[in-house]
Amino acid sequence: MREMTKKFLEDAFAGESMAHMKYLIFADEAEQRGLKKLANLFRAIAYAEYVHARNHYRELGKIYKEMAENVQQCIDGETFEIDEMYPVYNTVAQFQEEKGAERSTKFAWEAEKIHAEMYKKAKELVEKGEDYTAEKIYICPVCGHTVEGEPPEKCPVCGAPKSAYREFSI
Amino acid sequence: MREMTKKFLEDAFAGESMAHMKYLIFADEAEQRGLKKLANLFRAIAYAEYVHARNHYRELGKIYKEMAENVQQCIDGETFEIDEMYPVYNTVAQFQEEKGAERSTKFAWEAEKIHAEMYKKAKELVEKGEDYTAEKIYICPVCGHTVEGEPPEKCPVCGAPKSAYREFSI
Ligand SMILES: [Fe+2]
Ligand SMILES: [Fe+2]
Ligand SMILES: [Fe+2]
Ligand SMILES: [Fe+2]
Ligand SMILES: [Fe+2]
Ligand SMILES: [Fe+2]
Repeated sequence: MREMTKKFLEDAFAGESMAHMKYLIFADEAEQRGLKKLANLFRAIAYAEYVHARNHYRELGKIYKEMAENVQQCIDGETFEIDEMYPVYNTVAQFQEEKGAERSTKFAWEAEKIHAEMYKKAKELVEKGEDYTAEKIYICPVCGHTVEGEPPEKCPVCGAPKSAYREFSI
Repeated sequence: MREMTKKFLEDAFAGESMAHMKYLIFADEAEQRGLKKLANLFRAIAYAEYVHARNHYRELGKIYKEMAENVQQCIDGETFEIDEMYPVYNTVAQFQEEKGAERSTKFAWEAEKIHAEMYKKAKELVEKGEDYTAEKIYICPVCGHTVEGEPPEKCPVCGAPKSAYREFSI
């Protein structure tokens, strides 16, 4: 693919991903205000942006037939965030005495460490032709802490109670 | 907020949004290969990235108490895509004879025009203290075409059949 078209598709993928994310955030905000139909509109349009982002990503040749290659992309992204991005952003937030940013970057950094390990395990399994092992994954809705099987009594990262965790199961 | 911290939080929001999007795409890919537990892992971690992105966005002060201000952000984003981003990307794809990119940018461009109109209507309603009107929204899973009430017999943008449309309802 020509370089400028590639650059623009990458930018379009970023733009669609951010639009999708904003609409999911605003869907939850609308829901909290009792605006059910507005929340539904946001979620529907968020899905349309997913379709756009997926189409661009496919054209970029980033969706591989071999699932292990897709999982490797995830490992690479998480590893960059763990080793480079969040250590730098968190240090700058501390240095500039921005408490809120210090917390939100720390929360993310802690979860990414877990994600990288899960994806490494997933890659090994997929290479053997097997599915992932855990049937239930729990996410802390405050900080993103991620755990298999059973949530802890209290989130080890932000202190949220067990009952707050959101379950994802097959 | 200090400028560098702000810049880094914006970059982190972009990174989290793209990670979230990749994981949703790979969840669908895993599902298609019968890897249910891997798909569940991707969806769970995608939600963790949503939590991170939302936390960064909140620290950036971009989630407003007034819902109309949140909807205005959506109108602004869609308008930029309609008037600037997709016309340029689509023209470049045509000029560089990149058929796939021409199609994926055209598909997105068409849907954004509809999104902008829906958000404009939503903003008027929200300013009057009312919820959105439509209870059902349909999205074409091939191109993102967005329609209220009832899907057409054939997608006017990509030709997908009525039965392919995904329903979003309250
Ligand atoms: Fe879009
Ligand atoms: Fe992660
Ligand atoms: Fe937590
Ligand atoms: Fe994250
Ligand atoms: Fe849109
Ligand atoms: Fe379509």
